[in-house]
Amino acid sequence: MINQLIGEIKKKDAPIVVGLDPMLSYVPEHLKKDAFAACGETLEGACEAIWQFNKGIIDATYDLVPAVKPQIAMYEQFGVEGLKLFKKTCDYAKSKGLVIIGDIKRGDIGSTSEAYAVGHLGKVTVGENVFSPFTEDFVTVNPYLGSDGVNPFLKVCREEKKGIFILVKTSNPSSGEFQDQKVGDTPIYEIVARKVAQWGEDIMGDDYSYVGAVVGATYPEMGAALRKIMPKNYILVPGYGAQGGTGKDLAPFFNEDGLGAIVNSSRGIICAYNKAPYHEKFSPANFADASRAAVLDMKEDLKNAFVK
Amino acid sequence: MINQLIGEIKKKDAPIVVGLDPMLSYVPEHLKKDAFAACGETLEGACEAIWQFNKGIIDATYDLVPAVKPQIAMYEQFGVEGLKLFKKTCDYAKSKGLVIIGDIKRGDIGSTSEAYAVGHLGKVTVGENVFSPFTEDFVTVNPYLGSDGVNPFLKVCREEKKGIFILVKTSNPSSGEFQDQKVGDTPIYEIVARKVAQWGEDIMGDDYSYVGAVVGATYPEMGAALRKIMPKNYILVPGYGAQGGTGKDLAPFFNEDGLGAIVNSSRGIICAYNKAPYHEKFSPANFADASRAAVLDMKEDLKNAFVK
Repeated sequence: MINQLIGEIKKKDAPIVVGLDPMLSYVPEHLKKDAFAACGETLEGACEAIWQFNKGIIDATYDLVPAVKPQIAMYEQFGVEGLKLFKKTCDYAKSKGLVIIGDIKRGDIGSTSEAYAVGHLGKVTVGENVFSPFTEDFVTVNPYLGSDGVNPFLKVCREEKKGIFILVKTSNPSSGEFQDQKVGDTPIYEIVARKVAQWGEDIMGDDYSYVGAVVGATYPEMGAALRKIMPKNYILVPGYGAQGGTGKDLAPFFNEDGLGAIVNSSRGIICAYNKAPYHEKFSPANFADASRAAVLDMKEDLKNAFVK
Repeated sequence: MINQLIGEIKKKDAPIVVGLDPMLSYVPEHLKKDAFAACGETLEGACEAIWQFNKGIIDATYDLVPAVKPQIAMYEQFGVEGLKLFKKTCDYAKSKGLVIIGDIKRGDIGSTSEAYAVGHLGKVTVGENVFSPFTEDFVTVNPYLGSDGVNPFLKVCREEKKGIFILVKTSNPSSGEFQDQKVGDTPIYEIVARKVAQWGEDIMGDDYSYVGAVVGATYPEMGAALRKIMPKNYILVPGYGAQGGTGKDLAPFFNEDGLGAIVNSSRGIICAYNKAPYHEKFSPANFADASRAAVLDMKEDLKNAFVK
């Protein structure tokens, strides 16, 4: 799957992932009106509105980008209905040829991580039958519990040829509280990064490992150090756009081959229709076209990452 | 809710939580046979079998224990059907007067943690209506992202009078890889524990904070140090029984008032029917009675925690 992701990045010339992290407040009024008319002001109605929103954005961008990253929390907040929508969104995006990165940030003791790994990336057996309950290609994993919590994901990745991105240095302002604590001269995020390199070294695609890392665009200087520690691990870079990162901040995350990183934008793309400069040109009815325009602009901006 | 939890612990004289972490392989054959006959060898069939298993254990133990802790991964592995069952299990246990600790180990950047917090502990608004999608009283939270990831949970806890247990030192063998790394002389888990004490200090029940910690029974010497750092924070102690902890290991987790800790047992209780010594007395048809016997024995064993 890492080979497929890289193939799509090259083909579409866009190391971009669209973060499908919809809040109900992001959804244009006309979609909410229609959905509430059909399903009431209920959890089903909220999910129908978000479904139409997601579908519009996927339809308008799938030919431009290699992957989408649905953030499961935004679905889980609507309970069981929301999780149905999470699966429906993943399945639909996959039907359009997109690689699915489930942003689930799971991680637990061994037997429990195994349940997450089979549920999201693998298969569960019931009697004589085998099911894939959720259908992501990659998921994000929290490393706080150490190897026990990561190994079951590695096992399933190996079996299914799928992948994970392990949280190393997150994009949020307080990520340093624990991640930047120094052991001798070495911050915790570097200790995690060394483990990521190690976990990934014998589970390789053609050029990069099935095991990647999450490093926030908001910390480019750390990105440079982490790029060196994890030369064969793809870096998923959140924090571009709404969280503050720009194209030129992203240079340190890429390797000399122009690969090695994929940059996520969520609100910058999915909420483009109500943000400058797009809100002047696009009405809420054209939210999907605004998202497409934002992807095209992001693609241009990312070229600044490669300007020497 | 922390007051209610402590009230129930005192009333039932049992600082015990039953971990409802069912694998399909734990479910006695007769329940699987009936469920597969009704629903087929499907995800629905698996969930029906586990539902009958959970219901039997809840019915057999609810008068003895204050709380249950469903591990959401064990449900999530069965996809949407599994998450329906998670909610059904929580709702049923609550109807029997039990406090619900959702073992979800979530944690993300601020806006995302907020979605998890409202979805599991709070309310979401759709138009004019308000819903509680999942209905736990407490959830477990992963601290790797720092305060940004925890604050939204604190906000919802304050509004809803609910609580969280933050991972400090987990029970698994490799928990030390990152958690035990020393910053100067201070291990990371102590740095997290100090933050737990701070996060919880202005969100207090009568004697203990709404904010607790997870510290594994398998590390009693660390439990003693952490008890001192977090005197007002309840400690949820996993790792008893199947993971290796015993009653006398638990003394360090309790305060002088005999309170301050609640000990989880999962497999030791829910799989009692196929483990020594219970499998000699109880058949699989009597799995629930075996669970009850295991709870009564655990209650006795925990008294060793208080022997001076």
